Amino acid sequence: MNIGVIGYGYWGKNLVRNFYAQKKASLKAVLDFDAKKLESLQKLYPSVEITTDLEEFLKKVDAVAIATPVFTHYELAKKCLEAGKHVLVEKPMTSSYAQAQELIEIAEKKGLTLMCDHTFLYTGAVQKMKELINNGSIGNVNYIDSTRINLGLFQPDVNVLWDLAAHDISICYYLMNEKPVAVQAVGISHTNNGIENIAYLTLHYASNKIAHFNCSWSSPVKVRQMLVGGDKKMIVWNDLEATEKIKVYDTGYELKTEEDKTKILVDYRVGDIFVPKLDSTEALFTMAQDFIEAILENKKPSATAEIGALVVQVLEASQKSIKNEGKKIAL
Amino acid sequence: MNIGVIGYGYWGKNLVRNFYAQKKASLKAVLDFDAKKLESLQKLYPSVEITTDLEEFLKKVDAVAIATPVFTHYELAKKCLEAGKHVLVEKPMTSSYAQAQELIEIAEKKGLTLMCDHTFLYTGAVQKMKELINNGSIGNVNYIDSTRINLGLFQPDVNVLWDLAAHDISICYYLMNEKPVAVQAVGISHTNNGIENIAYLTLHYASNKIAHFNCSWSSPVKVRQMLVGGDKKMIVWNDLEATEKIKVYDTGYELKTEEDKTKILVDYRVGDIFVPKLDSTEALFTMAQDFIEAILENKKPSATAEIGALVVQVLEASQKSIKNEGKKIAL
Amino acid sequence: MNIGVIGYGYWGKNLVRNFYAQKKASLKAVLDFDAKKLESLQKLYPSVEITTDLEEFLKKVDAVAIATPVFTHYELAKKCLEAGKHVLVEKPMTSSYAQAQELIEIAEKKGLTLMCDHTFLYTGAVQKMKELINNGSIGNVNYIDSTRINLGLFQPDVNVLWDLAAHDISICYYLMNEKPVAVQAVGISHTNNGIENIAYLTLHYASNKIAHFNCSWSSPVKVRQMLVGGDKKMIVWNDLEATEKIKVYDTGYELKTEEDKTKILVDYRVGDIFVPKLDSTEALFTMAQDFIEAILENKKPSATAEIGALVVQVLEASQKSIKNEGKKIAL
Amino acid sequence: MNIGVIGYGYWGKNLVRNFYAQKKASLKAVLDFDAKKLESLQKLYPSVEITTDLEEFLKKVDAVAIATPVFTHYELAKKCLEAGKHVLVEKPMTSSYAQAQELIEIAEKKGLTLMCDHTFLYTGAVQKMKELINNGSIGNVNYIDSTRINLGLFQPDVNVLWDLAAHDISICYYLMNEKPVAVQAVGISHTNNGIENIAYLTLHYASNKIAHFNCSWSSPVKVRQMLVGGDKKMIVWNDLEATEKIKVYDTGYELKTEEDKTKILVDYRVGDIFVPKLDSTEALFTMAQDFIEAILENKKPSATAEIGALVVQVLEASQKSIKNEGKKIAL
Repeated sequence: MNIGVIGYGYWGKNLVRNFYAQKKASLKAVLDFDAKKLESLQKLYPSVEITTDLEEFLKKVDAVAIATPVFTHYELAKKCLEAGKHVLVEKPMTSSYAQAQELIEIAEKKGLTLMCDHTFLYTGAVQKMKELINNGSIGNVNYIDSTRINLGLFQPDVNVLWDLAAHDISICYYLMNEKPVAVQAVGISHTNNGIENIAYLTLHYASNKIAHFNCSWSSPVKVRQMLVGGDKKMIVWNDLEATEKIKVYDTGYELKTEEDKTKILVDYRVGDIFVPKLDSTEALFTMAQDFIEAILENKKPSATAEIGALVVQVLEASQKSIKNEGKKIAL
Repeated sequence: MNIGVIGYGYWGKNLVRNFYAQKKASLKAVLDFDAKKLESLQKLYPSVEITTDLEEFLKKVDAVAIATPVFTHYELAKKCLEAGKHVLVEKPMTSSYAQAQELIEIAEKKGLTLMCDHTFLYTGAVQKMKELINNGSIGNVNYIDSTRINLGLFQPDVNVLWDLAAHDISICYYLMNEKPVAVQAVGISHTNNGIENIAYLTLHYASNKIAHFNCSWSSPVKVRQMLVGGDKKMIVWNDLEATEKIKVYDTGYELKTEEDKTKILVDYRVGDIFVPKLDSTEALFTMAQDFIEAILENKKPSATAEIGALVVQVLEASQKSIKNEGKKIAL
Repeated sequence: MNIGVIGYGYWGKNLVRNFYAQKKASLKAVLDFDAKKLESLQKLYPSVEITTDLEEFLKKVDAVAIATPVFTHYELAKKCLEAGKHVLVEKPMTSSYAQAQELIEIAEKKGLTLMCDHTFLYTGAVQKMKELINNGSIGNVNYIDSTRINLGLFQPDVNVLWDLAAHDISICYYLMNEKPVAVQAVGISHTNNGIENIAYLTLHYASNKIAHFNCSWSSPVKVRQMLVGGDKKMIVWNDLEATEKIKVYDTGYELKTEEDKTKILVDYRVGDIFVPKLDSTEALFTMAQDFIEAILENKKPSATAEIGALVVQVLEASQKSIKNEGKKIAL
Repeated sequence: MNIGVIGYGYWGKNLVRNFYAQKKASLKAVLDFDAKKLESLQKLYPSVEITTDLEEFLKKVDAVAIATPVFTHYELAKKCLEAGKHVLVEKPMTSSYAQAQELIEIAEKKGLTLMCDHTFLYTGAVQKMKELINNGSIGNVNYIDSTRINLGLFQPDVNVLWDLAAHDISICYYLMNEKPVAVQAVGISHTNNGIENIAYLTLHYASNKIAHFNCSWSSPVKVRQMLVGGDKKMIVWNDLEATEKIKVYDTGYELKTEEDKTKILVDYRVGDIFVPKLDSTEALFTMAQDFIEAILENKKPSATAEIGALVVQVLEASQKSIKNEGKKIAL
């Protein structure tokens, strides 16, 4: 199978490096409209064909990875799908939920693999959490609480949720396997373009779960912490830890309903803590491999197009909520 | 001046110890309806008079500190004020904002000191933050973000905001000297009594500030972190740090509006960090002293009744917001 | 059984509190030569008899705990033993190894319990390490490395090793159950009394183990970290951690001797980490209990007199080593 | 000026990259005996000449950087110097102190720049410490204490001190500008080749300073911490901290000699802490620049050959001390 990559910018370079390293498919061609970038690529990967022409490019490849600016995703992915190519799109998948849905329909009709690169899903940390949830260790997940803040580059066209919460939304859906039913968000902009640099997003679920994300480009300290609260165990994921990213707490509370109903006692209990060893394979390599195997074995990848579409849907709804004073927006 | 304390439970003991240690006033009497508790007090403080009779108690003292269950605060404080006594009430000040307002009015009419014990305001950390804001080091405060989570005792009558956010509301008002104009909250209850054990509260301000508090009794890890983001400097207050609770970051962003208006560049800048030495006097001692000096010198204490009342007002509104799907509630 | 305490200073107060709380023996009398101190005791513990006369004191009690300055330990303990009393001495047991040996001999001859209060042995952390070593989890212990530094009170009569390394020596002996065969120490004094405020102590063992202690009163940061390196697992004990004091690393190295003998490969391997829950009973309470049960059940306590004597022996030898340019001193 | 690099292994690649990026000199040629390595270099740097012949190489260049195995340093450096080339040698400079001295003599006689690449000296952290010591902020340095431990690759020919303490020795000399007068070391080998994997090294100074280094390849946790204790301030350098590597403590003790001479009181005092922003330029780039400027401006570089020689001298003496039961070895 021949893979092609569109876009040789910052992320495109990473994609090229990781598709080049795959065994079950070969990186055949790279398309970019900047000839200079392609030159630099040619030096590093002389065997890869380069081109600035989409038609020519599509003739050479069976599957395409798209790493261009977001507003171009929809059109490029559509052209590739219509030309019968399997498609991997960078996150966020599209600019609107309607576009994402349309791409999914085309892919389904044509029997093609469509996937959205939410790389975080392939990290050792998220894979371990998924495993712990799937094997029942955690019990029923009651809540997810994420803090993803740092002093960040203010982006000129999307707010901090599109930049940072996109990770949390995809991870929550992947871990809990349940779509939120409503969304609420508040935010604030400290620039005169009105784009939020601090925002708080809450997801509501039919099953009485809750997820809350604290996102900021204006924090003096960097925090990457997610709590996953189950009724058996709780996970703390601190992504800034070098060697102890995931800690599993055998802590919990036991509710004992008193007869008089006036007091709910909580039996505070803290047991051993478990810090599992994580797989340290580069997540992007595993993602590229998953894309190839999904095509070859005709199976669903971990980072499905459905996750990609949900992320865009939630982000759209969060923007609507922010503009409507934090109103609860049903999905 | 003679001080009296009502209530010799967990917190009452701390009050007794700290009022006993004051120099400008003497602890004269303690009232409790549990004679056994009074006995144990008598052993430790033989010079302090004990009683179970309010009328008798009020004859002995000039000022009263009330450390009883919340639902009794209003009635007890009212009786003390009407008897011409200065009053210190534990936090939260009353069960409703209307009650708090009525107490303030009575105190004003009678020219008495009324104060609510938000002890945190007297810690070295909060005092240092107040100093840094007052002397202009921080610049204009843009936001406050607080995380106050741990595995906590589920309370049978009030939710996690009444327990934990009360601290944040009082600290924010003390630091920013500005009342919020609206309140939004979401929360979730994992018990069958419907009382929220996880809740998120957002305060909106007329001056485009925002404050957000993440409160939980269901976190496997304890976090006590507040970010105070100014346009000159930012403060990180980690109350769990033994010796470096307050860090001041000379970090910030410089917005340079580009001519083409399509990009907002952020000039990422990180300077020296400053970790000021904090006063380590017990906060409750300073609070007791402030109450006495406010009476003697006829001045406002730091923990004013107005702060106490605002806290109740915000908590009431937050409950209304939670019950109305996170609707923005104007104050 | 009646317990008596000699010395009501800083540590004596803790002993009194913990012996008072015991169930299998009662605190009968306290001796101190400062009548004022005894008065304050009388208020808190009206049932305990006080005295400034040793003869009178000895008539009242069956067992004695001695918490006086070190140079008085030997004489007081000897008198108590000779009067037929069981004895607990604070650490360090005596001023010299010869004195410690003499006390042990007297106790043995008279069939009395003699014990030295190395309280650290009774902490949840040390008890857990002992358990992990005893049940084979750690494998053979290869080394112990301890850092015990802080900005400390310079003591006028003993150096930093007598103050801080005393803990490490007793813990190492307790954990490894092996006496060192030689001792080496270097140190430096930054005061004009020549007493070392920074010192490094190395213990050598017949079984090719090594233990090294870094002790300082002149460190800007407080560190309390001990590494216990076994050939199966390794323990890190960070005593300043609130909830994760003990971490067990399933890490290790596998030596594969290459044929050419020129390279020793180390197969770097890091597995899961385990953070066991520790018993949080106050160590001093458990120590007091152990003393009482050792007497009542005629068994060896954990903190034996032999450990106490070894500590003094090693400290004496370390002083000799420091004065002899770090020469290796056989024990 | 034309620079040549000998050795295109792991470190040689870094040297090539950093010399290539310099402005005041150009990377002219690279010598390696492995033609395959040179091929891969040619792809990345087509303008750089490659060769496997030393004579040919020396004709092309004015200055040489040597990144080959240690045992070849002396001979290669000697040939380069004798051919009139300026020389930079990787650390450790040579296998013996005598060799290092001989190289220094040749360089001096010929008026050539000879330098040893102790890269750490060029890090933002060490540069900041040097600045703080030079401008008097720290006062007189009383001690340096370093812990440099991790689970490391056991090297087949040199012990852990040659691997890790080499950094500490060079940094201490650079910071304190004073040579130690004696050396003491103990160590232990857990392999059957007798090469120490854990070792402790103490340096003694004429001015009553002390430096102590704890080095280990067998620690479950990685620690990189150096304390620099001055009589005014103390520095803690934690190299594993992402953003707060250097902390300066305004802490200290004031000795007040009591009249009775029996007590030395220490006035414990902790002030503000200062966390300076560090230069984040890649240390190796600055090192390469320093080499070039030292040649062009005929001045001493920071990482002088004298530092390189002292490191070898101290390591030789430490080995002698280990083999002589930790005997103090005069330098």
